Amino acid sequence: MTETLRITVWGEFRHEKKNPKVAEIYPQGIHETIAAFLRKEEGFTVRTASLDEPEHGLSEQVLAETDVLLWWGHMAHAEVSDEVVERAKRRVLEGMGLIALHSAHFAKLFKALMGTTCSLKWREANDKERLWNILPNHPIARGIADYFEIPSEEMYGEPFGIPTPDELIFISWFTGGEVFRSGATWQRGHGRVFYFRPGHETYPTYHQPEVQQVITNAVHWARPTVTIPDDCPNCLPLETLPEDSAAAQRSTVGHK
Amino acid sequence: MTETLRITVWGEFRHEKKNPKVAEIYPQGIHETIAAFLRKEEGFTVRTASLDEPEHGLSEQVLAETDVLLWWGHMAHAEVSDEVVERAKRRVLEGMGLIALHSAHFAKLFKALMGTTCSLKWREANDKERLWNILPNHPIARGIADYFEIPSEEMYGEPFGIPTPDELIFISWFTGGEVFRSGATWQRGHGRVFYFRPGHETYPTYHQPEVQQVITNAVHWARPTVTIPDDCPNCLPLETLPEDSAAAQRSTVGHK
Amino acid sequence: MTETLRITVWGEFRHEKKNPKVAEIYPQGIHETIAAFLRKEEGFTVRTASLDEPEHGLSEQVLAETDVLLWWGHMAHAEVSDEVVERAKRRVLEGMGLIALHSAHFAKLFKALMGTTCSLKWREANDKERLWNILPNHPIARGIADYFEIPSEEMYGEPFGIPTPDELIFISWFTGGEVFRSGATWQRGHGRVFYFRPGHETYPTYHQPEVQQVITNAVHWARPTVTIPDDCPNCLPLETLPEDSAAAQRSTVGHK
Amino acid sequence: MTETLRITVWGEFRHEKKNPKVAEIYPQGIHETIAAFLRKEEGFTVRTASLDEPEHGLSEQVLAETDVLLWWGHMAHAEVSDEVVERAKRRVLEGMGLIALHSAHFAKLFKALMGTTCSLKWREANDKERLWNILPNHPIARGIADYFEIPSEEMYGEPFGIPTPDELIFISWFTGGEVFRSGATWQRGHGRVFYFRPGHETYPTYHQPEVQQVITNAVHWARPTVTIPDDCPNCLPLETLPEDSAAAQRSTVGHK
Repeated sequence: MTETLRITVWGEFRHEKKNPKVAEIYPQGIHETIAAFLRKEEGFTVRTASLDEPEHGLSEQVLAETDVLLWWGHMAHAEVSDEVVERAKRRVLEGMGLIALHSAHFAKLFKALMGTTCSLKWREANDKERLWNILPNHPIARGIADYFEIPSEEMYGEPFGIPTPDELIFISWFTGGEVFRSGATWQRGHGRVFYFRPGHETYPTYHQPEVQQVITNAVHWARPTVTIPDDCPNCLPLETLPEDSAAAQRSTVGHK
Repeated sequence: MTETLRITVWGEFRHEKKNPKVAEIYPQGIHETIAAFLRKEEGFTVRTASLDEPEHGLSEQVLAETDVLLWWGHMAHAEVSDEVVERAKRRVLEGMGLIALHSAHFAKLFKALMGTTCSLKWREANDKERLWNILPNHPIARGIADYFEIPSEEMYGEPFGIPTPDELIFISWFTGGEVFRSGATWQRGHGRVFYFRPGHETYPTYHQPEVQQVITNAVHWARPTVTIPDDCPNCLPLETLPEDSAAAQRSTVGHK
Repeated sequence: MTETLRITVWGEFRHEKKNPKVAEIYPQGIHETIAAFLRKEEGFTVRTASLDEPEHGLSEQVLAETDVLLWWGHMAHAEVSDEVVERAKRRVLEGMGLIALHSAHFAKLFKALMGTTCSLKWREANDKERLWNILPNHPIARGIADYFEIPSEEMYGEPFGIPTPDELIFISWFTGGEVFRSGATWQRGHGRVFYFRPGHETYPTYHQPEVQQVITNAVHWARPTVTIPDDCPNCLPLETLPEDSAAAQRSTVGHK
Repeated sequence: MTETLRITVWGEFRHEKKNPKVAEIYPQGIHETIAAFLRKEEGFTVRTASLDEPEHGLSEQVLAETDVLLWWGHMAHAEVSDEVVERAKRRVLEGMGLIALHSAHFAKLFKALMGTTCSLKWREANDKERLWNILPNHPIARGIADYFEIPSEEMYGEPFGIPTPDELIFISWFTGGEVFRSGATWQRGHGRVFYFRPGHETYPTYHQPEVQQVITNAVHWARPTVTIPDDCPNCLPLETLPEDSAAAQRSTVGHK
């Protein structure tokens, strides 16, 4: 029996309303396309949320009931409220998984967890992307061969302004001559974070089986194992301290 | 000839004014004690800054002229303005070194660079601290034996809410039965960050030779090698793209 | 339904025959005590092997049928044949998990995978050991609180001559004043390696529930996800090379 | 004043004698070409050694007087004696730097330090190689722009069977569609190890300024900071142990 995993797919859902080309590829929005293939997985309970809902669809309750959050945003990062970002960040640090997709490299939430610029080179020119599988025994690479290709994609190139990943799973090759760390993991607090590069809105990337496989794998991998709220406790000694020392024990007003 | 290194030691400078015990140990403030021993090092140009100065003493110009920033704060983290934190963070990501001391684990600047809670266990009870040298070939451990001791210190215990360090240099043992990752490094952007645990204000820790040695070593280690402002450039391909692809090249309004 | 996991517990099995104190604690040998608690886990199929069996009980076939190998050795590391070490190492690199226990830090197999001395400080003096849980969301720490204690153990102290672990899960505190990285993981090839410090033969360490819990967790964690034999293939280009380049393609006698 | 750095460049020196094409590019041998550009650096004292000298030119004395060792080998890895490999490995673990060049990925010494297969994909077809600078603030990347190109090189492709590098500095793009982690560092014991991919014998790679720059930078970076022979000491407690425990202190015959 598989234990239920509660997943929220967050989509900015703006390009789909403004650009007919995008609407044709993702009629219900990118987030609904992602939710649809995740719903096929046994044990996954999937909801969606988007920017223009109240609290961007990420109320305290929704986040409390989310085990893994997926995030796709691009043109409206600045419109995401700092309060919701802080709330989602706190949940990651407590144990919630996070999958940041494509231009979410610049999402406030991802940047706040990385602590860096997350900048990169980019070009929209229908480059072919070939993702090399560097870590074939990683659960996120399950079912992926030596490499897979995306026929047309936006190019993202190095240097990528991220902290050294805990694990580097995919490196991309682009026709135009660039490379990119396209699949990488970090632990932040008690939560697991995966960044996955592909997914520009003008290409049918999220309809491609390998991309769906990687995202599905990543959701499994990001399943929380604990939920530990933040705490900075004043602790008694576990061993006997020398006497003069014991005398010195006291609480300090205003400390921490 | 040693090239000049421009250092700014930032101190909160509040305990020293309020608590006679602290004032006795650090009459000019903790930051001035640290600046004083750094000034003995050939090639170091050292200034200080503190919370109650305009812009906390960290104007754009001061930071632009700072190669390595040291930070000691404790009771007034919340009073540091977000604007100054953002300014200092941007300089670290560009290449400036940062040495975060003791309770600076909770400084806004350090937390923003780590992306995590930076919480820990703590106790003020005159524990003895013994710092074990785990990485004796690291430049920050130069001149440090297998271990050194601090006779009385505040205890900080694991778990410590930080991302996995790039390098773990010191692990502390405490009389009361705890351990702590007391000396750790991270690269953030193009800047180097070192966290060093000891230095509670009620103990003469910064007068101790081994502590001064480690901090001096860390300042040398954190010297910037580059200064690279943040940038997220749109790039032309380096290789010829197939024709239909080349036709697709265009700038996208409002992208990034 | 849990898929079967095939486990081999290797024990040197010499102290138990020579030292009555050890025989009293582990009458069937340390390896049989470990095998006994692992056999209680659903889906685990457990066999044992030891030094004085032909091929040390680790024939090609036994290793081919082993998903996770546990290793306890101490006084007779040198008697393990290089051929068997090479065979087991090849299996780890292909995907087999390895749990190295206590003095297996000096086992030929562990040292060959680490590439370092694996030396440490040590003392037999009934120190109390307290293992702090640094990474509570790691599968190997499942069910383990902030810390657990072993009333009497041999002391192992830093510096420990290992490569920087991929993940550091436990740090030990010892009564005598030392610390140690007691639970650490590395990926080697396609296999997962966990080193776990406790387990000196003169103490009933492997009868302690927390120690059994960690080892059981580690076996689950080390389950292979792939089996990929070593290969260094000559590959055709995936993209068209310029013509003069294509002309240059040739096999090179004696290459690799 | 720069302190002297004692460098030994080891070359297999076989291709140069057998293949006129290689002899034309490297008339004195690859090792002499590398030594020649290193000799231009102030403070560098450079000698060379090669396979067919007694003890491969790496006697105990030569290694004792070597701060940084460079290694180029290809067709005759198997002819390097295990004794010399063990000797050189011990020196790395004590603190000597090691720069492994191109096909030295398969040198016994490099493999013994990595603990893995070090296998990779390969092709000789005059691919263009573009090395992207992922970590521009690293001392090894000093003076290197965003990328540099080598017009013709052997291709090495991922997956590369190495442990996760401590630092990843260069990722290569190849015309034929592959990527490779081309510049990576590991600490092993007290020594620093750098692997640098380019340098196939049939191309004039070591005459190229950027390649010379990287290798020169790497030699500076690998300078030993300590020399610490292997040791596994029995240690007295630093803190008072409970009495019954103290009684238990004893040396154990044959331990370690």
